[in-house]
Amino acid sequence: MKQTNSWICLQSQATASLDKPLNSVSLDSRGLAYGDGFFTTMGVIDGAILWQDYHRQRIRSHATALQLDIDSDALCIDLQIHAKQLQQGVLKLIITRAPQAVRGYGFTPKVSGSQCKIWLKAMPMNIATIDQWQLPNGHLVPMQPVIPAACLTAQLACFPPPLAGLKSLNRLDNVLASGELQRLNQTAPNLDKKFGEGLVRDMTGSWIEGTMSNIFYRLNSQKQTSATAEQFDNTQWFTPPLEHSGVRGVMRTVIMEGFATSTTPIMERPLRDEDLPKLSQLFFCNALRGIMPVSSLTLLTGEVINFA
Amino acid sequence: MKQTNSWICLQSQATASLDKPLNSVSLDSRGLAYGDGFFTTMGVIDGAILWQDYHRQRIRSHATALQLDIDSDALCIDLQIHAKQLQQGVLKLIITRAPQAVRGYGFTPKVSGSQCKIWLKAMPMNIATIDQWQLPNGHLVPMQPVIPAACLTAQLACFPPPLAGLKSLNRLDNVLASGELQRLNQTAPNLDKKFGEGLVRDMTGSWIEGTMSNIFYRLNSQKQTSATAEQFDNTQWFTPPLEHSGVRGVMRTVIMEGFATSTTPIMERPLRDEDLPKLSQLFFCNALRGIMPVSSLTLLTGEVINFA
Repeated sequence: MKQTNSWICLQSQATASLDKPLNSVSLDSRGLAYGDGFFTTMGVIDGAILWQDYHRQRIRSHATALQLDIDSDALCIDLQIHAKQLQQGVLKLIITRAPQAVRGYGFTPKVSGSQCKIWLKAMPMNIATIDQWQLPNGHLVPMQPVIPAACLTAQLACFPPPLAGLKSLNRLDNVLASGELQRLNQTAPNLDKKFGEGLVRDMTGSWIEGTMSNIFYRLNSQKQTSATAEQFDNTQWFTPPLEHSGVRGVMRTVIMEGFATSTTPIMERPLRDEDLPKLSQLFFCNALRGIMPVSSLTLLTGEVINFA
Repeated sequence: MKQTNSWICLQSQATASLDKPLNSVSLDSRGLAYGDGFFTTMGVIDGAILWQDYHRQRIRSHATALQLDIDSDALCIDLQIHAKQLQQGVLKLIITRAPQAVRGYGFTPKVSGSQCKIWLKAMPMNIATIDQWQLPNGHLVPMQPVIPAACLTAQLACFPPPLAGLKSLNRLDNVLASGELQRLNQTAPNLDKKFGEGLVRDMTGSWIEGTMSNIFYRLNSQKQTSATAEQFDNTQWFTPPLEHSGVRGVMRTVIMEGFATSTTPIMERPLRDEDLPKLSQLFFCNALRGIMPVSSLTLLTGEVINFA
């Protein structure tokens, strides 16, 4: 994989060395036809995959959930080789269920899972590493400049187990939410008024994540009404539970685990409309960009909450 | 389109005559990457598309919901030309949002909608027309031989407006349900013990549709308990409402409209667990197979309900 911005078809079997260059997929692909697969996007710095163990966990958990036969160890060795060649950039991995002899949506279940098609693309991209945030377990996470954000009206789909939380190829809800964010930004008077991310609800009205990221937040306890029995330290970080909607992102897991053995482990807690005025801090995060701290949040009412 | 089982890329603009033969799609396709598109599958008999006006409605409603720029009139003329060439079989249409200059899920909203990629495949297939059911408005619907069916444990995803009910490329819930049906049938002792379809619930526990079809049912009023205030004629047909889960299928619409001006219009009514023992008739339906009447329904408890 010398060239970037081109795809290759990975063979995770013994013939790993025979990677096939390929920029297209059959129109009969189950990935296209039904979204029958998943993806993951990995940052590469100095020839090494960032959060590699967490991407490996994702590959394993998704293989189980979708009943796919993936040799994740062999695949991860392959990924390391390609990261080494790329040195700096991004690797995008797409895994779909291979064609099946049965008609329509169905597939023939096997104990080992279905055979897969595995594609990898290397892209040049600068992963920001200037500012970093040190988690309680010592891990360093890239930190982006602050961005203004806005609440969106688009809602996320709600998935049953075992699909909930997966980074599957079924992302139409994120597409429409991202389209809404782009529409808001089309009317922004200038570049520094553009929203860097949008906050999206699930179908019960809870605020779940960004259009392409997870969220963490803190609440100002002084602003809490006496009506609520909750009492938290101002320094407590929360993140919404993702039992039905949203994607359990790699960076979300990194941060959760980074705080797990600290004195203030991160708590999963729904973020409701009535919590928004009490927010004292908010950041988005994903595996490529790390932390994206929010400078202000524009609510659906037009009200703007500014963060210190 | 002389050859069958191959795809062509349709140009729905003025250059319609320059249909490009193409059996593959870029790995960067938004259809593959995010499920950003929809599809429809049309039966063709004697050179004509079955339920053409309903497929046209689907194309229009999905273009609006997904903010796609589709000249549905020009496209439908194109489809008719290909149907004429095919004479007998099935046309599968896939429409995705064309690549966008923005990174990730996002797209640049336009008043006219996003540009599309449109693909069409012709397949040989015999559309059964031996038995037919005459709807109250006179339309004839193909009727298949009876099949045994089974309740499945797989659940359908729940979509927010405007995604609810669409035949989008996001079908992982149907894929897993179909896989469960295949698994049940792997252990069937012989062919006539195999289930022809599976009944699938939404995430609230209501029974919504089949793995690849919609459902209609009748209730035996004599079996209704006094606890329920509902009193129906034994001849009343019901179908589950599809506000959040499931696909509003073409054949479902054909049947609903076929009864709309009759003395007993079809009622939308949830199908709950407690209703299953009261079922007196049940059929699955889709645009290709028409009606698939059910001879027996095996519940999750193993209990079997036989229909007359």
